[in-house]
Amino acid sequence: MLVFKVYVNPDLKEERDKVIFNVEEFTNWFHGGSDKVKEKRFLENYVLSDPQLQSDVDSSYLSHKEKYEEAIRRVVVVLRRLEKLQSEGHQINDLYVKVLGGLPVTNVLKEGHPLVTHMGMFIQSIDLLGNEEQKAEWYEKASRCKILGTYVQTEMGHGTFVRGIETTATYDPKTKEFVINSPSIRAYKWWPGGLGHTVNHAVVFAQLYSLGKHHGLQPFMVQIRDYETHMPMKGIIIGELGNKVGYNAVNNGFLGFNNVRIPLKNMMMKNAKVLENGEFMKTNSPILTYLVMTQTRVGIVRGMAEYLMKASTIAMRYSLVRRQSPIDPNSPEPKIIEHVTQQMKIFPSIAKVFAIKYAADNLIDLYYEVSADMKNGNLSRLPELHALSCCLKAVCTDEAARTVQICRLACGGHGYLNSSGFNDIYGNIVAAQHYEGENTIMNLQTARFLMKVWKQALNNEELTPNLQYMKNFIQNKGRRSHWDESVDGIIRAFQSATAGKVSLAYKHIEERKKFCSIEQATSQTGIELAKAAELYCQLFMLQSLANSIKNGVRQVSPALGNVLKNILELYAVDLAIKSLESLLQFVDISSADIERLQNKLESALKAFKINAIGIVDGFDIPDTVLGSTLGAYDGDVYKRLLEQAKKSPLNQEDVNKSFHLYLKPFMKSNIVGPTRRQDVI
Amino acid sequence: MLVFKVYVNPDLKEERDKVIFNVEEFTNWFHGGSDKVKEKRFLENYVLSDPQLQSDVDSSYLSHKEKYEEAIRRVVVVLRRLEKLQSEGHQINDLYVKVLGGLPVTNVLKEGHPLVTHMGMFIQSIDLLGNEEQKAEWYEKASRCKILGTYVQTEMGHGTFVRGIETTATYDPKTKEFVINSPSIRAYKWWPGGLGHTVNHAVVFAQLYSLGKHHGLQPFMVQIRDYETHMPMKGIIIGELGNKVGYNAVNNGFLGFNNVRIPLKNMMMKNAKVLENGEFMKTNSPILTYLVMTQTRVGIVRGMAEYLMKASTIAMRYSLVRRQSPIDPNSPEPKIIEHVTQQMKIFPSIAKVFAIKYAADNLIDLYYEVSADMKNGNLSRLPELHALSCCLKAVCTDEAARTVQICRLACGGHGYLNSSGFNDIYGNIVAAQHYEGENTIMNLQTARFLMKVWKQALNNEELTPNLQYMKNFIQNKGRRSHWDESVDGIIRAFQSATAGKVSLAYKHIEERKKFCSIEQATSQTGIELAKAAELYCQLFMLQSLANSIKNGVRQVSPALGNVLKNILELYAVDLAIKSLESLLQFVDISSADIERLQNKLESALKAFKINAIGIVDGFDIPDTVLGSTLGAYDGDVYKRLLEQAKKSPLNQEDVNKSFHLYLKPFMKSNIVGPTRRQDVI
Repeated sequence: MLVFKVYVNPDLKEERDKVIFNVEEFTNWFHGGSDKVKEKRFLENYVLSDPQLQSDVDSSYLSHKEKYEEAIRRVVVVLRRLEKLQSEGHQINDLYVKVLGGLPVTNVLKEGHPLVTHMGMFIQSIDLLGNEEQKAEWYEKASRCKILGTYVQTEMGHGTFVRGIETTATYDPKTKEFVINSPSIRAYKWWPGGLGHTVNHAVVFAQLYSLGKHHGLQPFMVQIRDYETHMPMKGIIIGELGNKVGYNAVNNGFLGFNNVRIPLKNMMMKNAKVLENGEFMKTNSPILTYLVMTQTRVGIVRGMAEYLMKASTIAMRYSLVRRQSPIDPNSPEPKIIEHVTQQMKIFPSIAKVFAIKYAADNLIDLYYEVSADMKNGNLSRLPELHALSCCLKAVCTDEAARTVQICRLACGGHGYLNSSGFNDIYGNIVAAQHYEGENTIMNLQTARFLMKVWKQALNNEELTPNLQYMKNFIQNKGRRSHWDESVDGIIRAFQSATAGKVSLAYKHIEERKKFCSIEQATSQTGIELAKAAELYCQLFMLQSLANSIKNGVRQVSPALGNVLKNILELYAVDLAIKSLESLLQFVDISSADIERLQNKLESALKAFKINAIGIVDGFDIPDTVLGSTLGAYDGDVYKRLLEQAKKSPLNQEDVNKSFHLYLKPFMKSNIVGPTRRQDVI
Repeated sequence: MLVFKVYVNPDLKEERDKVIFNVEEFTNWFHGGSDKVKEKRFLENYVLSDPQLQSDVDSSYLSHKEKYEEAIRRVVVVLRRLEKLQSEGHQINDLYVKVLGGLPVTNVLKEGHPLVTHMGMFIQSIDLLGNEEQKAEWYEKASRCKILGTYVQTEMGHGTFVRGIETTATYDPKTKEFVINSPSIRAYKWWPGGLGHTVNHAVVFAQLYSLGKHHGLQPFMVQIRDYETHMPMKGIIIGELGNKVGYNAVNNGFLGFNNVRIPLKNMMMKNAKVLENGEFMKTNSPILTYLVMTQTRVGIVRGMAEYLMKASTIAMRYSLVRRQSPIDPNSPEPKIIEHVTQQMKIFPSIAKVFAIKYAADNLIDLYYEVSADMKNGNLSRLPELHALSCCLKAVCTDEAARTVQICRLACGGHGYLNSSGFNDIYGNIVAAQHYEGENTIMNLQTARFLMKVWKQALNNEELTPNLQYMKNFIQNKGRRSHWDESVDGIIRAFQSATAGKVSLAYKHIEERKKFCSIEQATSQTGIELAKAAELYCQLFMLQSLANSIKNGVRQVSPALGNVLKNILELYAVDLAIKSLESLLQFVDISSADIERLQNKLESALKAFKINAIGIVDGFDIPDTVLGSTLGAYDGDVYKRLLEQAKKSPLNQEDVNKSFHLYLKPFMKSNIVGPTRRQDVI
């Protein structure tokens, strides 16, 4: 970030001056090169400087309805801005993804916007689910926003278990139409972004019936609102879901069908079709669609890293400005970062950004490898890819939710204020815990894969390279493994523990199977299975981080390289301590080892202290994106807190009307009040 | 709860019919007797049936300003309702506490109300801090709401470390006035409830200066707004803080003083006074004030249990209604409670209600004992009381925040909706993590006590009965203690681990002391100290629960007694597994022991399953208090979800104006849009 002669809180400046590495070098490495950083800064500035995006009143003060209206206004401003950029001849790859799919708009569209599913899923779904004629008809219309749509699958009564979906599409050969119907209110579609009042099209998943036969879940393109009046089409029952923990501008909606008729050509026919006579034909394997889920999950995981970049930047900067509680009774109050307990909150949160980011990067690398394998007809690594995408979605969203709260609490009372920025970050992170698959079920899907792997390992079948440790555990006959506290040693310990947990879960299923079905036995072993999947995921994250950092160290200056190694060590040791419960069960760790590990953690914190501000500065999040009174670059926290408070709509008048309406008459009404002294709360 | 012939979801009814104990017996035991239950139900019904509290639009849809206005209206309605009750001759002890200090109003005043600090602290503070004349002047006025006030201590720059407060009160003997001043914006008072626009008085803490000498922090009564016009008084800079994670109707405010003059008699003189000539005199020890903090913290801890009663009721009932994911592939989708992973989320959450409630109850018992001791001049147990109140505040608010999120996630996507009820519960719980002392500092205060205790133990001085285990650990020479998995065995394991952690922290401070001051050494040992305090607290909670349940079992029928024992076992085993990291360091637990413990947990879950719905029903929270679509007594979840969604203000019109204003012109404007297929998010 280029900053010219602006006021900076001296306490913060002092710490910045101590940083031993070149922050810009880190920024360039972290964001993939100086060209990308330049482009990122250009885009942030170009989009966010639009005068129509400046506003003195934070949208969080608005009513629910006003929030929606303001988000529609703003997202159109952003889209027009991108259009202007293109019309000016700027050639920027993946422009829409870069601006609308990442951090840049998270402060001007704090609670999301109603076109998110149009941009993120509807357009793609035409490409993925439509045949050539259908793509010709709808793709360009959708990508040029001539029609707006959403992706409609989940129902009020059916989420992660897709087969349970109840909405029906019954083919009527007489009129060559499908009749779409909601057999109960439980079958009402529920959740799609923009569905409430925004879009006029939807790709709807329904159980297909033709000639009296059921042909499974199929997608259909349905026009749900009139192009001119925007009124709901005949038979469409529609609205939004009401307010939520966050994402209150996304216009999540419900949709009921009362025998809605759509033409035959509106079934999305890439993978299956219905002929005019009602005959059903499968044409393609939907495996590609399945693969795309991985991309969606990588997107979610990346988002978690980005939100934690914001959260840790805020908490870190505030920790250098806030002074509290003298360490020596006669000394002045120190910067709160001087308290090791504060370091313990902030530094591992910063390290977590790296672990989550590189897990996503490694998963996408695997995705490309598997895609290439598939083109050569080799599907052998698809299950591993799927298993990793499941548990990473679950573990990373859970970790992010925990971490943003640690950061918020690390800012004391002020963290509770919306102006700190944490509340919106939390709302967005938590959404990802709830959507795209329930997290426990995600972990259990991964565990199912691990059970298969274990069986293969027991049968001495070949395993993918990542999973060799399962065989080692067997060769080692499950003996408690030797402990050493290096990063590689911690990785080995996690390998033993993961294999150990997997083997125990497998054993318990085998034992239970004697008395019930394997499905029952698996279900009864759910707690252990979910835990095994979490460990497997933590191991993948640690390995990904270790690999990425080792690569990084080769690319950067020694000064920066040391900081990166420090981050890896901090992450690994902290994770080991937090996972001792699992490690101790399978690894020989003595009480003295634990003490040493604790010391190592404290040393890693100490080493990181001098550089931590450089790392969060190097994340390179401008104030216009960060949107935080506590985390702004200048550290002028108290002035900003007061300024923001003064902007509250309630503060625009000295006396609120409720005083005259309710309070004053009440105060003058001579009530009796609590009759005993104890009766005050 | 008396329920007559209403519709109940058959899935829920089926489970209720299986419960093996008498729910009403449990309710009566849990709430302290059938008279209390009767009174509770009468009050809930009397207050909440007021027509002026019925509303079709949830206040969460309102703008920030409207939320405030509506909360003022509602709290006045509630207060007038209580007045009416009194005027009708009902004699109810602690009426105001029972209604405004607990669950009854949590659904009609979801985000709190602006008189909370008036009712909860201002009135009391007159009693605690004023001399007899001052009480005569202000107490009745305050309790009868002729004046409204708040309690003003924290500043923007100074929270938990009270001595750092900067606001000054300088005595001017010429005019016999104090001049109150904020030397910087950092010194602006910050947070008091109702301060923004509601109250006209404040008890303000400021550094007293008289005759050029500093006399520490003292309280002053300041009128801040005019009685008739409600305009801020001269020199008063005032407003509210803006919106927050929750509690958005509390009207938390800021307050700056520009040389505000108040008469000499407005210094609150119970413990110290200034004579007309400026002479300062201490008159009383403020130890009583100090003791009152314990009561505040007990209140916070109790509140956590109450919020978790709501959260666990919602999640439990929903788990019997929601069906998802067949266990056997050809069976129908089971109630989600059939999945052990779901049981693992809900049942320990229910058990936590008991652990937190009884920790609060045990602390208040100790409070009364210590108060009685003090009257006899014995202050020996005051430090233990203070230490327990600190760590309980921290640990119970943290546990509650974790638990409400587990419950919310256990309800899948629907948990993210405000209509589920979790969001408001979360906002209120989290507030308690942030206020009344930063949680880590709370734990460190407890740890300071534990270090003193350890020194006493080493010197073989007498310890209070609760702390004998420290001596046992020393007598045992720190050897790893024997493990057994009974509740008493788990308690003993926690005793060893707590003593062990305390001894290690002590040892590390001693080692570090050789190189720095003891304060520095203590600060550097902060992470371990905080952990030791948490363990000490968990042990106190477990012991409190065990004692309370053992007492309970003697009072109730064998059927209910068994359920209570089941709850204790569930809590103890779950806690042991979650704390293995600490236990394994000091107790001889083998891998086989851990497997056995895991089995024991699964058995405890299984045993509890049949009775869980009876327990949450027995918490006896009527729908009017619960305020949840997912948790209502009748389990008619889907109908309620849709009904609530339809009430969203956005759903009151088919087409929102933003379509014509922004969307339609944009859709018709023929934009280029993303130019590459990959460029969709």
